[in-house]
Amino acid sequence: MDETETLFSTPEMARVFSAENHLRQMLAFEAALARAEARAGVLPPEAAEAIVAACAPERYDVAALYREAARAGTLAIPLVRALTAQAGEAGDYVHWGATSQDAEDTAVVLQVREGLALLDAGLLAVGATCAALAERHRDTLMSGRTLLQQALPITFGLKAARWLGLVTRQARRLRRVADEVLVVQFGGAAGTLAALGAHGLAVSTLLAQELGLAEPDLPWHAERDRIGALAGALGVVAGAMAKIAQDLVLLGQSEVGEVAPGAGSGKGGSSAMPQKRNPVDATFALASARLALGQVPVLLGALAQEHERAAGGWQAEWDTLPRLFRTTAGAVARVHAALAELEVDAGRMAANLAEPHGLAMAEALTMALAPRLGRPAAYRLAQAACERAVVDGIDLREAALADPGIRAALPEDAVARIFDPHHYLGSSDTLIDRALAGFRALSTSP
Amino acid sequence: MDETETLFSTPEMARVFSAENHLRQMLAFEAALARAEARAGVLPPEAAEAIVAACAPERYDVAALYREAARAGTLAIPLVRALTAQAGEAGDYVHWGATSQDAEDTAVVLQVREGLALLDAGLLAVGATCAALAERHRDTLMSGRTLLQQALPITFGLKAARWLGLVTRQARRLRRVADEVLVVQFGGAAGTLAALGAHGLAVSTLLAQELGLAEPDLPWHAERDRIGALAGALGVVAGAMAKIAQDLVLLGQSEVGEVAPGAGSGKGGSSAMPQKRNPVDATFALASARLALGQVPVLLGALAQEHERAAGGWQAEWDTLPRLFRTTAGAVARVHAALAELEVDAGRMAANLAEPHGLAMAEALTMALAPRLGRPAAYRLAQAACERAVVDGIDLREAALADPGIRAALPEDAVARIFDPHHYLGSSDTLIDRALAGFRALSTSP
Amino acid sequence: MDETETLFSTPEMARVFSAENHLRQMLAFEAALARAEARAGVLPPEAAEAIVAACAPERYDVAALYREAARAGTLAIPLVRALTAQAGEAGDYVHWGATSQDAEDTAVVLQVREGLALLDAGLLAVGATCAALAERHRDTLMSGRTLLQQALPITFGLKAARWLGLVTRQARRLRRVADEVLVVQFGGAAGTLAALGAHGLAVSTLLAQELGLAEPDLPWHAERDRIGALAGALGVVAGAMAKIAQDLVLLGQSEVGEVAPGAGSGKGGSSAMPQKRNPVDATFALASARLALGQVPVLLGALAQEHERAAGGWQAEWDTLPRLFRTTAGAVARVHAALAELEVDAGRMAANLAEPHGLAMAEALTMALAPRLGRPAAYRLAQAACERAVVDGIDLREAALADPGIRAALPEDAVARIFDPHHYLGSSDTLIDRALAGFRALSTSP
Amino acid sequence: MDETETLFSTPEMARVFSAENHLRQMLAFEAALARAEARAGVLPPEAAEAIVAACAPERYDVAALYREAARAGTLAIPLVRALTAQAGEAGDYVHWGATSQDAEDTAVVLQVREGLALLDAGLLAVGATCAALAERHRDTLMSGRTLLQQALPITFGLKAARWLGLVTRQARRLRRVADEVLVVQFGGAAGTLAALGAHGLAVSTLLAQELGLAEPDLPWHAERDRIGALAGALGVVAGAMAKIAQDLVLLGQSEVGEVAPGAGSGKGGSSAMPQKRNPVDATFALASARLALGQVPVLLGALAQEHERAAGGWQAEWDTLPRLFRTTAGAVARVHAALAELEVDAGRMAANLAEPHGLAMAEALTMALAPRLGRPAAYRLAQAACERAVVDGIDLREAALADPGIRAALPEDAVARIFDPHHYLGSSDTLIDRALAGFRALSTSP
Repeated sequence: MDETETLFSTPEMARVFSAENHLRQMLAFEAALARAEARAGVLPPEAAEAIVAACAPERYDVAALYREAARAGTLAIPLVRALTAQAGEAGDYVHWGATSQDAEDTAVVLQVREGLALLDAGLLAVGATCAALAERHRDTLMSGRTLLQQALPITFGLKAARWLGLVTRQARRLRRVADEVLVVQFGGAAGTLAALGAHGLAVSTLLAQELGLAEPDLPWHAERDRIGALAGALGVVAGAMAKIAQDLVLLGQSEVGEVAPGAGSGKGGSSAMPQKRNPVDATFALASARLALGQVPVLLGALAQEHERAAGGWQAEWDTLPRLFRTTAGAVARVHAALAELEVDAGRMAANLAEPHGLAMAEALTMALAPRLGRPAAYRLAQAACERAVVDGIDLREAALADPGIRAALPEDAVARIFDPHHYLGSSDTLIDRALAGFRALSTSP
Repeated sequence: MDETETLFSTPEMARVFSAENHLRQMLAFEAALARAEARAGVLPPEAAEAIVAACAPERYDVAALYREAARAGTLAIPLVRALTAQAGEAGDYVHWGATSQDAEDTAVVLQVREGLALLDAGLLAVGATCAALAERHRDTLMSGRTLLQQALPITFGLKAARWLGLVTRQARRLRRVADEVLVVQFGGAAGTLAALGAHGLAVSTLLAQELGLAEPDLPWHAERDRIGALAGALGVVAGAMAKIAQDLVLLGQSEVGEVAPGAGSGKGGSSAMPQKRNPVDATFALASARLALGQVPVLLGALAQEHERAAGGWQAEWDTLPRLFRTTAGAVARVHAALAELEVDAGRMAANLAEPHGLAMAEALTMALAPRLGRPAAYRLAQAACERAVVDGIDLREAALADPGIRAALPEDAVARIFDPHHYLGSSDTLIDRALAGFRALSTSP
Repeated sequence: MDETETLFSTPEMARVFSAENHLRQMLAFEAALARAEARAGVLPPEAAEAIVAACAPERYDVAALYREAARAGTLAIPLVRALTAQAGEAGDYVHWGATSQDAEDTAVVLQVREGLALLDAGLLAVGATCAALAERHRDTLMSGRTLLQQALPITFGLKAARWLGLVTRQARRLRRVADEVLVVQFGGAAGTLAALGAHGLAVSTLLAQELGLAEPDLPWHAERDRIGALAGALGVVAGAMAKIAQDLVLLGQSEVGEVAPGAGSGKGGSSAMPQKRNPVDATFALASARLALGQVPVLLGALAQEHERAAGGWQAEWDTLPRLFRTTAGAVARVHAALAELEVDAGRMAANLAEPHGLAMAEALTMALAPRLGRPAAYRLAQAACERAVVDGIDLREAALADPGIRAALPEDAVARIFDPHHYLGSSDTLIDRALAGFRALSTSP
Repeated sequence: MDETETLFSTPEMARVFSAENHLRQMLAFEAALARAEARAGVLPPEAAEAIVAACAPERYDVAALYREAARAGTLAIPLVRALTAQAGEAGDYVHWGATSQDAEDTAVVLQVREGLALLDAGLLAVGATCAALAERHRDTLMSGRTLLQQALPITFGLKAARWLGLVTRQARRLRRVADEVLVVQFGGAAGTLAALGAHGLAVSTLLAQELGLAEPDLPWHAERDRIGALAGALGVVAGAMAKIAQDLVLLGQSEVGEVAPGAGSGKGGSSAMPQKRNPVDATFALASARLALGQVPVLLGALAQEHERAAGGWQAEWDTLPRLFRTTAGAVARVHAALAELEVDAGRMAANLAEPHGLAMAEALTMALAPRLGRPAAYRLAQAACERAVVDGIDLREAALADPGIRAALPEDAVARIFDPHHYLGSSDTLIDRALAGFRALSTSP
């Protein structure tokens, strides 16, 4: 990973999806294969032991192997050669019955397992922050906004609860995808396991056991739907992070000012403007999500792999799935950082809700009038009051009180109640509870 | 749908994702809302009845409503106006407590339900054709090919079984996505259900019941992960269809000639070349899949929707999800057509496997030598025999018999057996059985 | 085009990229081919005349031809058959020496010519509106904003000038692309023009003349770089429109309020909220741009077309390039509508610039101090003053006047001047002039 | 760049688009700015000299600066701080009047200049190889193939000439894009150059001179159309490389065998199959092109940048444009490697053209009959002969000679001539000449 990419990733995920770890997991495959074949009676046990010993990653030169891979076409070819040399006499049994892609793909699956665990932890951390905000700001009034226009009162707790629901669903979806995708690849050169004669599927089962993976219905060298499904799910996670980050950037605009990045962070200055406190984490979350989303179509577009192993489509996965994981992790981490240090300005939220002209209470007025007048007539009266408020520069409440039609339909004390946004929050409280309960169920299940 | 798009879709899916059906489903939402609110005691029952009656689709002018929608910003606005007019006195209660997006999104979900049912049926049809091919050609030898080079013998039955496994997994995945995505949208203007006071969630539950949908944890106006997950899953289906179609195009090349489009189809002539029988269905499957895949990033890229309702991202879904369904359906239908009429030339498959020089048996030779010589030495001997076969223009079998090192390791009768591809099919048979069983389990479950 | 797509397109562009017009332009190709071949002595002149007469579009049934095309694989096959029937005895000479793709591709190029002319006109209209805004608001102060934070004073005229520069560059780029892409396709079935013997290139030249197109270096049936370049350029236009629309949506937020959609438009109400005036045109511009951008990777991804004519990649263009044109046109038209009716609130711009705490003048303060103190020391002093302003709830100007370090470096009358944003506009005026001059040069050249 | 990416790039381009070189070019910007400002009388000349001296890249710790950048939000902030420290007293004048994005963007433009030069050289090298193939194989007969079906005879020289035309157009297009994109970025914090008072544009002009870049009409901090146009052009280059690589993979299939990767390369073995010689370079060209194409929508999707500097869209460019250049370069280099070592089997080309049944001459037969019978009747006769050839397992020539209708229309000696593919190459020779001339014109112009 180039330094530039570090801005959009995390060190942990970069390690999981590094060339070094890919090599390490390929060696884990070769070691597990030897063990499984010894258990199946295909290899002498002592050969398996020697191979396992030779699979120590520190014996191999990653950069040199990749240079050879560029000519050979896969990393497996030089690696198998090097491992054979390392294994001494047991070299006769290295990679027995397997093909390059068996090793490459299974190694990727092992990396995916590590990567999904990191994302799960990351999403749980984001969720915990959202949950805390939802509880703390259950009653903090603010504007709901549609098409970036003030709409109705909501609470910041409800907004955080919707983020929370979103995050909870992502973690759940990734767990389901893990069930689908954490399978061994083992088919031999053309998917028949012919090189193992009658032992093929027995070895396949034992190999999966050794690695703690499931066994798939069939080898999947050129049927990459699991990779595609994984890509789609990660893309949705990245998009979900972008949704939260986008909200934070918008809420933190100078003219909105409802949230701000943590002051203590020392983040977000400007080389020219001394007053600046830019939303650095949210900005990089957005950028990371864009990078992540860019990888998804590469993986989906590569699904049409030719015959029993592709020329181009498979190889394109090698540097795309890692980048997708790395940048998705970057988005998750940056959203977490933004939320964890978030300063919430409840006063500004209340003030914005009251401006301009308290128009955000227009639907409340409509619905107060509707039972008496029907919704269409109520809507028209409320709309006229809104226009008057704007033209006269007064509050919608005053405009309503000055309107004879409205006054005829509503007693004055009802008006006071209508215009108190605390009374127009509908089911917000229950919805917050639902989001909290959903997250709790997730975070207490394995 | 323009005529051009008909080339890449099916009439059935075009109907489901037409403007007409969207309007019809929005009316279904409004009718169900009225019924649910009457059941909840929010509306007078007779008002609900009148609204339900007014929701007859034939009363509305689709084109005119869309023209108004282009100014209003949503179809719901002119539709609610028109429905209010149609409902007479009950117009006072139309769309009570709902927002435009509640109606739009729920209508889309109802269309998605129809669309997923069509895709399920389409995939089952493709699967049935694959299953038949897998059984019929269980023993039909052909070349397995990696990087478009002959690799090892497989059977056409195994190839069809791998397509079958792929198709089975797609149908299963779509069913899981259906569980996730078939939820009602109901939150009112800012997701609080405030306009319904204390009745919001009761109405939400009844509304979901009326429509046969599930109730989500929270309204999801600007949290579009379900749409994103759906898009990803459909993209994988399209990619899976492209995989099969790509294989068919490659197998049907003039120089390969192992399959051909059905002769009776009258398809695939040329305006210039009288000898042509182009793989029209496979070609359009590939093109349809490309169109489908192009929609996925639009939907994923639109996930970052602002605040409580987006300006741009949501609207972009309106014509993208329909196109994704239509073109995915086109890909499925075209693959089915291609497979259903497929002519399989087993003789050509056998002949290709024998050419050039029977090199596809090189791994078999290696693995026959390996137990005696170790894999590396066996590989080198087999490689030398391959080179000799090419240089001398002889069959690998002959080259092997002429090699003293090989002869020393293998008795002559063993060689005969080694070079019979029927003896080098490994676990093919069991893998075919697994694919058939998986499909059977799918097609007999609801 | 389905009604849904009408929300994201224009009727004019929809006509240009309709199935009807595609057929019409294919007939234009066949007519021009007959004329060119008659001029080259390949066809009898009277046969050419009869063919030209038979090319009247109203004689053909678009829907029926597309139904046949779905089986045949191209529209050209049924069309040539129908045209042959229409041409009577001259039918013997129809489509002489051409291949389906010659007719299909040249028809698309003719549609592209019409489409680019519409886009040019559309961009000129957008440019004229930007130019008017740039002139009218040359001195209208507002906040420049970076990362959505207030940064420095600019003028709304400068913002409009930057939009104008962007639009001017798009129109120029499209004109350059037109030079590249408006070429005839004519190569016969495999690009050799073999069916015309020695006359191939002479016919090619005359055909290009007849159609007013340029002649390419070589036929380009499977080398689609021109289509790719066109797609890229249209994508940039769509992205440029999104940039302007995004700015408009942000400037029109309730809390910013610097622009508003025209009041007279009757656009942008809400089905639930009577106070709403949503930015409908800008919103649909953003959505249209998303749809357009989604088509670009489909076209770029289809560049790898096989051999002399592709199976899948070419066909995918047929419904993608039209959609790209239609939705790009939608984005341009919606941006124009948004700008043409735009209400600009100069008072609100000035008020926002002064808030919060006049911090937008912090760089001005820095640069006033820098010549005396060096930039780093000046930056630190200004930063401290900003912090004081926020903490004490005073204006930066007051905070500066209260700072002994600043007072020592700057005389009091200098401070007054520093904090007048009119004096901190740098080269804005000249930049506006440049943008206006660039647009004038464009709009007066053909 | 991770080792994995080395498989899809070149070391030269990796160096140009490395974090190190980005830093180096940012320092080049700061040095040039100091020089320009000294020339404009804004800075003391000795300060400029000191700053220039401090801009030696080896003084800076790239990794440390990137770590700070992750918090600060741009690399410019820690770099300006470090440079200020390095410059001693002249630190007072570092980065005078500039903003972070001025330095970042101009550095990228300088990298782009280097990157485009590498791509130009790479494309010229590919072109030279294509030109040599076009000349050498001007008369090497082979099948033209449409929809992967044999169509007509062409020559391998013509195929190479079409690749050559494609490559020539790419190099030309990149040169045009260079004219557009190689412009300085200089606008100060909000694009007004206010910090430089009246000197802004004079400094801008001198800065551009110092760096050998053009001056743009306006600063372009949030108007990224040039980046978008560059992305589009690079995407087309990548797609063009994929087209050539795809053809090579298809021509090299076991059953086609018309080309093969160079034997001496030691490339493309298999870990399981000793006979394998996989098309490694073409495969990695295809994969690299997929990675490159994946970056384009990220850059186009980022065009909608907010106000005067974006939060997310701009930052997403930082690691996307570099990857686009790196992987495009990988595709170009791999295509060059594949072509430079290509083994062409003219005998196999001729043999494939004759098979199956010599049907590739069917259009020749049609066009020989057409002048006498009209095209439709000729087409039907030829089609019938094709069918007979297939059914009877004879050559089309024999089938034609056996057909009384054909015999009546054509004398026997004409038939001999018709079925000699050398006589059915149309304008191939002239088209080859055109492609060669076009490339010569390109490669001799600067």
